[in-house]
Amino acid sequence: MNNEIAVNLGDKSYKIRIGAGEINHLRNFLTQKNYSKIFIITDENVAKLHLAKLHSVLQGFELTTTIVASGEQTKSFGALEKTCEEILQQNIDRKSLIIAFGGGVVGDLAGFIASILLRGIDFLQVPTTLLACVDSSVGGKTAINSKFGKNLIGSFYQPKLVICDLDFLQTLPAREFRAGYAEVLKYGLIEDKKFFDFLDQNLEKIFLKDTKTLQEIITKSCENKARIVSQDEKENGVRALLNFGHTFAHTFENELNYSNDLLHGEAVGIGMLMAAKMSQNLGMIDYAQFEIIKKHIEKSGLNIDLKQIRKNWDQKNLVGHLYKDKKTEHKNLTFILLEKIGQAVIKKGVDEKEFQKIIAEML
Amino acid sequence: MNNEIAVNLGDKSYKIRIGAGEINHLRNFLTQKNYSKIFIITDENVAKLHLAKLHSVLQGFELTTTIVASGEQTKSFGALEKTCEEILQQNIDRKSLIIAFGGGVVGDLAGFIASILLRGIDFLQVPTTLLACVDSSVGGKTAINSKFGKNLIGSFYQPKLVICDLDFLQTLPAREFRAGYAEVLKYGLIEDKKFFDFLDQNLEKIFLKDTKTLQEIITKSCENKARIVSQDEKENGVRALLNFGHTFAHTFENELNYSNDLLHGEAVGIGMLMAAKMSQNLGMIDYAQFEIIKKHIEKSGLNIDLKQIRKNWDQKNLVGHLYKDKKTEHKNLTFILLEKIGQAVIKKGVDEKEFQKIIAEML
Repeated sequence: MNNEIAVNLGDKSYKIRIGAGEINHLRNFLTQKNYSKIFIITDENVAKLHLAKLHSVLQGFELTTTIVASGEQTKSFGALEKTCEEILQQNIDRKSLIIAFGGGVVGDLAGFIASILLRGIDFLQVPTTLLACVDSSVGGKTAINSKFGKNLIGSFYQPKLVICDLDFLQTLPAREFRAGYAEVLKYGLIEDKKFFDFLDQNLEKIFLKDTKTLQEIITKSCENKARIVSQDEKENGVRALLNFGHTFAHTFENELNYSNDLLHGEAVGIGMLMAAKMSQNLGMIDYAQFEIIKKHIEKSGLNIDLKQIRKNWDQKNLVGHLYKDKKTEHKNLTFILLEKIGQAVIKKGVDEKEFQKIIAEML
Repeated sequence: MNNEIAVNLGDKSYKIRIGAGEINHLRNFLTQKNYSKIFIITDENVAKLHLAKLHSVLQGFELTTTIVASGEQTKSFGALEKTCEEILQQNIDRKSLIIAFGGGVVGDLAGFIASILLRGIDFLQVPTTLLACVDSSVGGKTAINSKFGKNLIGSFYQPKLVICDLDFLQTLPAREFRAGYAEVLKYGLIEDKKFFDFLDQNLEKIFLKDTKTLQEIITKSCENKARIVSQDEKENGVRALLNFGHTFAHTFENELNYSNDLLHGEAVGIGMLMAAKMSQNLGMIDYAQFEIIKKHIEKSGLNIDLKQIRKNWDQKNLVGHLYKDKKTEHKNLTFILLEKIGQAVIKKGVDEKEFQKIIAEML
């Protein structure tokens, strides 16, 4: 059983393969190519659990593996430099391939590295988290973080292939799986009411990691994202919808220095709730719709209690972080809000006070 | 008097304007645009000599200036991080503009920064050296250096406009001007015999910095480069010809850690002589043609005495650096060589011994 999705981006098009045991397909792909060397970039956790499997699939190829620290801190200039230099030391050439093997952090870092080593070499994504399967491995956004905000330094750079092997998700800790689910839910909320309904009816199966259900929700998520990205690779328009919940999320992540106290998906869960609230406050959705969204987020077990994450939030700081959002232009605040469940819109020129009002409510 | 050259790269096309006082055109360009902020990146030397002029042209715009250290050392991860963070601290947004104001080092660094800040914002090149006017400001190559080689980390990223104001060249030290000339000569050697003859006949006027002659040679150089780049933006083919002399040059620069003892253009001068010699050794050009090239390089005053630059070169190290060249694929050495003056070709699979033979002769 496997599904294949095409991401259509002209000469940068590629495929996403989704299925249990799908990693074994990698060998077929590589034997059709003529790469001189393969550089795997992975992190400590994934290396412990799954690197042996990847190495066994790649037996016979000239391999080098670079293992970075796990966690958001790895999306830094320091790790970028260290990893680039480690790879360059191995006499990499333009026919070399990078494989990003891990979650979103590894994908973002390794993709960025692939885009700038020798001004760009080929790379593949082999995501091992739900978040990476449905979000960061699709669409070619790569990045590291700045002192002044998340993902502020990076590139648009497309992989040659994405392989989502569902087997890797079985070892994913419950908390991380749940965080990844936030991004799945996002697709339902922003553009696919039917998908939202499916999620609402199958929440239990999803969290039992039923293979068939996993395959269904990852495929649907990737299809949704691929459709949006194909329309707007460089985020000049519709792609901004994928940032639903993210403008809020980034302010909290930023304030916590991207610490493990709040995973990205958890922040997105809170952010989507706040975006729904803002949509309601501005009269775009009614209270009933807001309640449906809120209940679903609660049922999914995502933590929406900001006070539990940190006792005292500095509201002024949070507002400050808002202005570093990449969507901010000429000091104009932009949010992605809902017109109904399954339909998001870009809302420009939102007053800072609308944000403060919701923050005050939530704290 | 000004010349305008179009670099045709589809939706990434841009113009190069060349002339005395041409910087004043910048205002016209900017008033047609709607940039939120302008970030100038320049170095200490250029800031001292010409920043006041640029600031006066840009009066009324929201400006921030970042001054980096002069010299190749600035093309480092350290300077990249520092400059990125300095700019991000100023609440840059996607409608911000970066102006690279300086020589090749500033252009390479600032262009790379523009390509990765917020995953890419607009930038302009205002080159202030002959080298930057004829080489690094055209074609969209941006880069920093690795411990393991020059320009190994970077991107292909096109400016929105290049302004070569000849007035800036008047303050350029003779040594730097001469180094820049090496790249001018390169265009004659690799694809334009008529241009080579023009250079051979006008060498004196060139080094007197006669404005009309400068305009002529910069325009011709940019036209030559623009033509090649338009055919092959990402260096998959013909663009490699622009590396004539560079594979040799990089080994010396690398061995000297890019020190000021050997400027890039000086290294290219030596490299072109060696490439000509290799072409002769392989029977591609005859001795008479080699002699014409050698005499011209001598007349131009470029230092070709390797022993004067460093007493003892480690030949083994030099060979080692060769293998880090970006053109090296599957351990195959590739050189750009001449079939005649005005016609270069890509020569793959050259034996390492050919390199060693010439090195031995030169030392």
